[in-house]
Amino acid sequence: MKTKKIILPDGEMPTRWYNVVADMPTRPLPMLNPATKEPVTKELMSRIFVDELVDQELSEDRWIEIPERVQEIYKIWRCTPLVRATELEKALDLPKGIKIYYKNESTSPAGSHKPNSAVAQAYYAAKQGLKRITTETGGGQWGSALSMASAMFGLDLRVYMVKVSYQQKPYRGLMMNTWGADVFPSPSDTTEAGRAALARDPDDGGSLGTAVSEAVEMVMTHPDARYCLGSVLNHVVLHQTVIGEEALRQFEIAGDYPDVVIGCFGGGSNFGGIAYPFLRENLVNGRKTRLIAAEPTSCPKLTRGKFEYDFGDLAGFTPLIPMFTLGHEFHPADIHAGGLRYHGAGMTASQLLRDGLFEAVDIDQVESLAAGVLFAKTEGIIPAPESTHAIYAAIVEAQRAQEAGEEKTIVFNLSGHGVIDLYAYEQYLAGALKNTVLSDAEIAKTIDTLEKLV
Amino acid sequence: MKTKKIILPDGEMPTRWYNVVADMPTRPLPMLNPATKEPVTKELMSRIFVDELVDQELSEDRWIEIPERVQEIYKIWRCTPLVRATELEKALDLPKGIKIYYKNESTSPAGSHKPNSAVAQAYYAAKQGLKRITTETGGGQWGSALSMASAMFGLDLRVYMVKVSYQQKPYRGLMMNTWGADVFPSPSDTTEAGRAALARDPDDGGSLGTAVSEAVEMVMTHPDARYCLGSVLNHVVLHQTVIGEEALRQFEIAGDYPDVVIGCFGGGSNFGGIAYPFLRENLVNGRKTRLIAAEPTSCPKLTRGKFEYDFGDLAGFTPLIPMFTLGHEFHPADIHAGGLRYHGAGMTASQLLRDGLFEAVDIDQVESLAAGVLFAKTEGIIPAPESTHAIYAAIVEAQRAQEAGEEKTIVFNLSGHGVIDLYAYEQYLAGALKNTVLSDAEIAKTIDTLEKLV
Repeated sequence: MKTKKIILPDGEMPTRWYNVVADMPTRPLPMLNPATKEPVTKELMSRIFVDELVDQELSEDRWIEIPERVQEIYKIWRCTPLVRATELEKALDLPKGIKIYYKNESTSPAGSHKPNSAVAQAYYAAKQGLKRITTETGGGQWGSALSMASAMFGLDLRVYMVKVSYQQKPYRGLMMNTWGADVFPSPSDTTEAGRAALARDPDDGGSLGTAVSEAVEMVMTHPDARYCLGSVLNHVVLHQTVIGEEALRQFEIAGDYPDVVIGCFGGGSNFGGIAYPFLRENLVNGRKTRLIAAEPTSCPKLTRGKFEYDFGDLAGFTPLIPMFTLGHEFHPADIHAGGLRYHGAGMTASQLLRDGLFEAVDIDQVESLAAGVLFAKTEGIIPAPESTHAIYAAIVEAQRAQEAGEEKTIVFNLSGHGVIDLYAYEQYLAGALKNTVLSDAEIAKTIDTLEKLV
Repeated sequence: MKTKKIILPDGEMPTRWYNVVADMPTRPLPMLNPATKEPVTKELMSRIFVDELVDQELSEDRWIEIPERVQEIYKIWRCTPLVRATELEKALDLPKGIKIYYKNESTSPAGSHKPNSAVAQAYYAAKQGLKRITTETGGGQWGSALSMASAMFGLDLRVYMVKVSYQQKPYRGLMMNTWGADVFPSPSDTTEAGRAALARDPDDGGSLGTAVSEAVEMVMTHPDARYCLGSVLNHVVLHQTVIGEEALRQFEIAGDYPDVVIGCFGGGSNFGGIAYPFLRENLVNGRKTRLIAAEPTSCPKLTRGKFEYDFGDLAGFTPLIPMFTLGHEFHPADIHAGGLRYHGAGMTASQLLRDGLFEAVDIDQVESLAAGVLFAKTEGIIPAPESTHAIYAAIVEAQRAQEAGEEKTIVFNLSGHGVIDLYAYEQYLAGALKNTVLSDAEIAKTIDTLEKLV
């Protein structure tokens, strides 16, 4: 019988994270201090972030050692399976030469890829002697992961969760509480930024931009606390490269290699996590793998945004970040893929897209959830709404190859399961979900504000 | 760095299920037709169950081949990890010679061990040319698993779910719907048995006994349908032995062997699944592993029940089953471990307990959930309320060994995750959960009815 999946034994797991900056043809522009328009200093960043994470953020080293303690915890669930989607392939009636694989990050205790960075960040925070940290979360995957990691390292955690997700997904809050974290729906009345948002609109369902503002403000007003970010910045993305590094070795064992690598795209850590190690193979070893980021049509910073300096949050507390953005005032529709509702793309991804080193596609939520149901009924796993974007993109790639009569090996990152996001499926099955069609004028409205920033 | 976990590669997975009946010192008594008091015939059973499952139920063969198609689907998530609970050990401050392992069945797409039998049952149903099946579910783990398996084999599925669980766990119903199943809270008004229960008490929160009655009645009134049971009967238990067979090989690779094997106990499939292969080693190869079934104090059929012929359901539709039981009219308290709320123990487990071949302990829900929270904060995984009983029992065994200054290797089956059962943790954290203390008189009330049956 043929092999369905490959899992690396504990002893063969990656011991280093990959930092794509070392191999980028164009290095990312520096983040700027909004007050001075000068590159941000390490000192300024260290007021917000854990010291060692700041070092990683500014590092141009190709490899960063994974601390032994982090490796130990990774082994609870890693290496995650690289699975051949044979059941999905059958349902699509694909010819033999077209193969779909998925890297199953849903088997982590928090149900997603997010613990890869959460465990690392909590480890470094505890190592620095910190007692409390704070964060934001959109769909809840990051907040859950950091809650778990904080419990493991004895840290107090406060989570600002985008209110619309908090309401759609009551189990997310309970999950974080079970691990011992405090959760506040954002906008909340615990910060100036939250109160300002509520003053503008008492029914504001929140956004990642607002939640980031609240979490950063909490840190700025509590000198003993630091902020742990779930995506966007490069230190987060590099922790996630453990996914792609494992996948490279798993493909080697499978005797196969992907022509196409796909990840959904919110801030870029899930996409970079699976794609950057394959990008290195493209840049350094002349491979020609296509890398595709799948974003929601309702939040299309890669496909319709502008490369510009912008704030990472709504209130403008963060440094100015060079990125593809829709403008930090862009308010995405309340789609179920909460983790993809972010106005900007991470720095490394933005520069790489500018240089044409990966592709981006935008996908409507009705179509992506339909792909999610097909995946659930074939491979059994109910995917996170975020991940369904990658599944849809993989199906499109497979069907195009079939039409063109080409052979193709496709892999996508199944970034998480959706069993705490079932309200999305309930609405989909009831035919109650709508797609979001954004006019050029709507997008221009917030993008045009960027010109004033730098 | 030491090995944290062991996973068998696809090519080394078990290809046969183990049937404990072949090695039992005393064979189980036959099930009886309640009308004639004669052993049930294959013909009668085949009206309710899928033909090949009836053959397995009556089989005394030691090994039953796992169909290749079932093996293929198992490989989506199996082999499940055998994990050394190093983080939990540290929190308990155990000496080096006391080791706790867990077999992590929570990584299946349905989040529990239940797909091991669900996939097999759906496979055989489809092979027989059936188009629809029905079942009951308590906590929702079995209903979810069979929903997934039914989707994979194109079967229509109707699930009767214990009402109190249906209400406590709205996501369970949504999960089954996403896979395409129809779910009815039981008692429902779709069957005579359900209507009778509602007539007795319109607020009846249901029980597995009632739900089984409804599912069996539905099959009796629909000649094209068959009933798929999630535990109790031996064909279900033997499908679950893939857990213990994997664990045996994993311990061989680990260079270790358990002194104690623990599973929580509802109908007996999860316990038998991990324990029976180790029981074989005791019986055939002279090993001395202690096997411990952990049941809830509120439903103590093993520790306080009576070995007697009894119905498997409340209405008395099933054959008479020789088992440890509290009486089929016993109505367990509405504890959160819905999968353990069943009045009787499976036939093989009952006979084995009678012969002193395993031990049983009863555990209160407040203590078991406390163990669940400790496990979540150390190993990261939020366990199903059912599984927390096994965790608690494992901790007790470890601490006793520590007090006695003994070395000990303990393994428990982590039968599922609890992220769809978070209401239990919410109540626990709020201090709102109570234990159930049953008087002897309460238990005698329903046990005493058994004397009239045979």
